[in-house]
Amino acid sequence: MENSADQYQHLRTASSQELRRLVRATQYAGHTAGLAPGRLQANIIILPELHALDFMRYCQRNPKPCPLVGVSETGDPIMHTLGDDIDIRTDVPSYNIYTQGKLSKSCDDIKALWQQDHVAFAMGCSFTFEDALTQAGIPIWHIENNKTVPMYRSSIMTCPAGPFSGEMVVTMRAIDKERVDEAVAISRQYPLAHGAPVHIGDPTAIGLHDLSKPEWGDSPPDPGDKVPVFWACGVTPQNALMRATLPLFISHTPGHMLVTDIDDQAEVPLYSPAIS
Amino acid sequence: MENSADQYQHLRTASSQELRRLVRATQYAGHTAGLAPGRLQANIIILPELHALDFMRYCQRNPKPCPLVGVSETGDPIMHTLGDDIDIRTDVPSYNIYTQGKLSKSCDDIKALWQQDHVAFAMGCSFTFEDALTQAGIPIWHIENNKTVPMYRSSIMTCPAGPFSGEMVVTMRAIDKERVDEAVAISRQYPLAHGAPVHIGDPTAIGLHDLSKPEWGDSPPDPGDKVPVFWACGVTPQNALMRATLPLFISHTPGHMLVTDIDDQAEVPLYSPAIS
Repeated sequence: MENSADQYQHLRTASSQELRRLVRATQYAGHTAGLAPGRLQANIIILPELHALDFMRYCQRNPKPCPLVGVSETGDPIMHTLGDDIDIRTDVPSYNIYTQGKLSKSCDDIKALWQQDHVAFAMGCSFTFEDALTQAGIPIWHIENNKTVPMYRSSIMTCPAGPFSGEMVVTMRAIDKERVDEAVAISRQYPLAHGAPVHIGDPTAIGLHDLSKPEWGDSPPDPGDKVPVFWACGVTPQNALMRATLPLFISHTPGHMLVTDIDDQAEVPLYSPAIS
Repeated sequence: MENSADQYQHLRTASSQELRRLVRATQYAGHTAGLAPGRLQANIIILPELHALDFMRYCQRNPKPCPLVGVSETGDPIMHTLGDDIDIRTDVPSYNIYTQGKLSKSCDDIKALWQQDHVAFAMGCSFTFEDALTQAGIPIWHIENNKTVPMYRSSIMTCPAGPFSGEMVVTMRAIDKERVDEAVAISRQYPLAHGAPVHIGDPTAIGLHDLSKPEWGDSPPDPGDKVPVFWACGVTPQNALMRATLPLFISHTPGHMLVTDIDDQAEVPLYSPAIS
């Protein structure tokens, strides 16, 4: 649905639980940037148990692009450790369905697709450290201009596991030169949200020859005097799974994250009703 | 073997790779505290692939006691991501063999026990943050007195996964009251080494009524004016696996860790020959 200004204002102040109720009721299917501030948001991958162990090994070996914050039981769509009554079949604003390694469609629930052998994986996302950068007064172009962060397929190779491998997808934020060290230090404090940058400066060193043409997200302005800083991106596992040409896997639609009840400052992403 | 003072001095200065060569050649089977300083040491669990996914879920849900730093391919005893030529069948100084949930014996290699369906898991250990505490000038009793840290089965319950559940095992270090906050802040910087404490102060609040009687390790002196501070312990997964009464699982012998080639300050535990 299109959001009027009123609706958007309501969304901005909604709790994580209210927001998921709207999503579940198909009353909101948009992106989640800036929503439920203070709550951990997550990238989602759903695949058959047959590939779950290899995928967890891939995440363990590539914790910067794939910082695991929650894993469902096989066949159980409720993500018990991430919040109150999170049903992964309905509570993500938009899903991408991939068949034979290709995006086949997007949809707003996967009730008809969920199988008894499915396992859902949640991975932290950059909204957490972006919030911390913004609070430190470091301006972020795509936030100030209500755009989506530019994402690129870099030449940095991930560490393979089973059928999963491939290039690391990275996001770029242009940072004032004198604040780069601070941005590194701040983001490093969030290992569940991609941690410190994977590359700073010359984009060609990681195989990127035209920053104005991101693979996903919006085209950013020329960095000018600012330094392009690159962080690992949660779209990386989608890239690895596409390369593995699984018959079926499901992800969130980039930018349309699962909003959890976990405090985004939490050291351990484990939901406890008492502290929600 | 018994170590003479000379041998111990040699061990103290050996690199992680030299140390593993001695261990593999059965020339050293002792504890690894203080050895290969600056290198990440790891708790080890080896179990059949049948239980590997549930065990990884258990680690993901309990990252403070079980901070995964490496996972082998199924049936491959070489831990490629943790260093140069690490063979998990021979390179741990001492192994504990558990059958039907009970410790059956300790031994210095597991070549005859390794199976094609085995998966090896490495989890960070407290030596990393102890080193940081010591460098900050915070005295640690068991280090200064060449003892093993006292370990207790607390009443804090871990988050279950599949057949794995049970009490969190904790270590205790008595810290000067005015330095507790500093010890918390320092250890929190090491999420791959149990992170910040899980409890500070009154031991009875976590079910411990006599600190002089640890379940593992050495009996500490009365804390006196110091504050007992409790960290999650890498023996926790052994406790969970014993409760699950698997027919067979293998661990390191407490204190006798795998010494990896990973820098213990590394943000990501991924071995690269270029930086070793």
